[in-house]
Amino acid sequence: MARVNDHFLKLTAGYLFPEIGRRVAAFAEAHPDAEIIRMGIGDVTEPLPEAIRVAMHKAVDDLGARETFHGYGPEQGYPWLREKIAEVDFRGRHCDIDADEIFISDGSKCDTANILDILAAGRNTIAVTDPVYPVYVDTNVMAGNAGPAGANGRYGGIVYLPATAENDFTPNLPTQPVDVIYLCSPNNPTGAVMTRSTLAQWVAYAKEHDALILFDAAYEAYISDPAIPHSIYELPGARDVAIEFRSFSKKAGFTGVRCAFTVIPKGLTAKADDGARVPLHRLWLRRQSTKFNGVSYIVQRAAEACYTEAGQQQVQAIIDHYMGNAKIILKALAKLGLIAYGGVNAPYIWLKTPTPGGSALSSWDLFDKLLTEAHIVGTPGSGFGAAGEGYFRISAFNSRENVEQAMHRMRTRLKL
Amino acid sequence: MARVNDHFLKLTAGYLFPEIGRRVAAFAEAHPDAEIIRMGIGDVTEPLPEAIRVAMHKAVDDLGARETFHGYGPEQGYPWLREKIAEVDFRGRHCDIDADEIFISDGSKCDTANILDILAAGRNTIAVTDPVYPVYVDTNVMAGNAGPAGANGRYGGIVYLPATAENDFTPNLPTQPVDVIYLCSPNNPTGAVMTRSTLAQWVAYAKEHDALILFDAAYEAYISDPAIPHSIYELPGARDVAIEFRSFSKKAGFTGVRCAFTVIPKGLTAKADDGARVPLHRLWLRRQSTKFNGVSYIVQRAAEACYTEAGQQQVQAIIDHYMGNAKIILKALAKLGLIAYGGVNAPYIWLKTPTPGGSALSSWDLFDKLLTEAHIVGTPGSGFGAAGEGYFRISAFNSRENVEQAMHRMRTRLKL
Repeated sequence: MARVNDHFLKLTAGYLFPEIGRRVAAFAEAHPDAEIIRMGIGDVTEPLPEAIRVAMHKAVDDLGARETFHGYGPEQGYPWLREKIAEVDFRGRHCDIDADEIFISDGSKCDTANILDILAAGRNTIAVTDPVYPVYVDTNVMAGNAGPAGANGRYGGIVYLPATAENDFTPNLPTQPVDVIYLCSPNNPTGAVMTRSTLAQWVAYAKEHDALILFDAAYEAYISDPAIPHSIYELPGARDVAIEFRSFSKKAGFTGVRCAFTVIPKGLTAKADDGARVPLHRLWLRRQSTKFNGVSYIVQRAAEACYTEAGQQQVQAIIDHYMGNAKIILKALAKLGLIAYGGVNAPYIWLKTPTPGGSALSSWDLFDKLLTEAHIVGTPGSGFGAAGEGYFRISAFNSRENVEQAMHRMRTRLKL
Repeated sequence: MARVNDHFLKLTAGYLFPEIGRRVAAFAEAHPDAEIIRMGIGDVTEPLPEAIRVAMHKAVDDLGARETFHGYGPEQGYPWLREKIAEVDFRGRHCDIDADEIFISDGSKCDTANILDILAAGRNTIAVTDPVYPVYVDTNVMAGNAGPAGANGRYGGIVYLPATAENDFTPNLPTQPVDVIYLCSPNNPTGAVMTRSTLAQWVAYAKEHDALILFDAAYEAYISDPAIPHSIYELPGARDVAIEFRSFSKKAGFTGVRCAFTVIPKGLTAKADDGARVPLHRLWLRRQSTKFNGVSYIVQRAAEACYTEAGQQQVQAIIDHYMGNAKIILKALAKLGLIAYGGVNAPYIWLKTPTPGGSALSSWDLFDKLLTEAHIVGTPGSGFGAAGEGYFRISAFNSRENVEQAMHRMRTRLKL
């Protein structure tokens, strides 16, 4: 008798973005003339830079001739891409990371989820910040690292570290020992960044408690403040305690192209049942060789093109465009008297929900209000965790025209 | 204290193909002038058909303009691709499969591995044929569905069903009840196919024991006998007991492009702890939405192009080419007095190892002999399981020139 993974049955409600999709579709069907502006899901909007498209065209042509045809590639990615990443993204920032510590993948969502394959199920205490990217939590529920959800949506056994305006969106270190810690900086959804000294505290905590840090730096390209670390490996000792996740999705507009990478330093270990220290690099290599077949050749060539001079300039121009949007949004929200965070080192603005009748709107109330009054889609903060209630995420990923139009509508149509 | 998944530590030796890679690299380094012909890993060699490249060029251009830009797609794949698959691959063969029962992915290796996420770990008895595609076994070890390996390389708790010349490569039904059964037809590595009546017995077995069949049809495009089913859903009742895996890798030369799909009928269920029947479609949709971000837009457009008239013709021409290779190989082996199976409905030839001194060579002996004497790389049968010992896989994926050269070398250089 085949049995299902019962842990899946603990998962509450749908994943955040499908729920948003359902509400928007229902509204659009009822109001076919409404021109909905989507500032919700955090998907990029700008065309893929020319340097990247040129590289992809060439890669497609490569596949058309026997001499340059590429079949299965290395599961960990092509050396020419891994070496470029090591050189520019790490050695360029004085991080001691080698090419063979980099694993190319088709997305950070997959990697932050699949990494649990190499960790003991049901035997590590997991810490996440709250609000949090839902994938971290849901995948731990699926893996059996959590108990049933309580009334506030929090799962039993998971340690939630609140990040709110009250603590400047910098969660305190856990008061009990935890084994695996998810950190995301620049943060999705709050747009906050971790300073060097905050990160140093986490590295010290992990060393002290033999904990593993899963550091998600998918938005590092949006950091404008030169004092903020782009990689956790800029911190001394981080090689011994942290795995880092990076992505081309937001950096270079690859959400539909699909490329990311994960860094596992060779000396990073965790404990086996017999007390031995096992290198996580070895386990992940085995996991990827067995359960993954590498990223499309064409896509890896596209990622490589991000590191050419033209590619770097064109990618930077798009980032500048999005951060220009963020400035416009922050300014407009301030004029409306709304309180907003983020948007300086991250493409997300984290809005405090307003209090039109004296009491603060809930996140989903503001979602419905923005959708129905201004035809704008954002993301309810409560979808990211209990401590996200009373907040709302607005994404800077949009055309300039849409951002200006959306801010105009908020000024003119929103009943605050 | 972070703990690793101790089940990984039960895995024996390296994954088959990396081990081959190591031996070939060592030989090539010692003999830099040897022109090695690779008939081992089963990777395609022929250029990607024009119709597919044209579609990919157009898709790259789509990403270059805001109006046609595609960011995140649906995690399950674009409807235009899923509908085409349902129409051609299933309704075209009178299989009752809807577009929304099809999940697009980046590879069948990933899907056959990841499917275990939705099944209970350590509580399903797993049956595999022997020899077998190593991924099925290794992923079950990782998931905790197997005990340590014995001296013959077989893992405790897994039910192995031998497929050898003695039973015409048609394994018997298990004598004890099993919960999950992996079937692969056309078979990798033996090249055997399951007839309609054999498949019907498996469907009946699964119904009787409430078992789940994981049916891997990655090589269905190579079936030449019109009586052989291409899909398990050609069998009545299969919708209630089977998940099917399909791939563009071998069908259309996509090993470097990366596209596949998995079919989960909506009525297919398995048991929860409380006795409820849970639809696997719902669990897989949740799994994919949470742990996967969809296949590259460009790649999905490439897959779609396989279904145009030009695409179908060009893809078929490549299949005909490879199967022409298979004919040449079978003929040459027969002339050498060697016994070989497969190669008629599958791109793999399953060679019985010769007995030069009276006793049969081992699979790895033949590997080393072919490599050193004829500079040909094949795949040792024992790498696919204990019952693969004494066999050797030769792949028909090659240029005509290489195949003819390889057969010439076997005739002239091999000391039999």
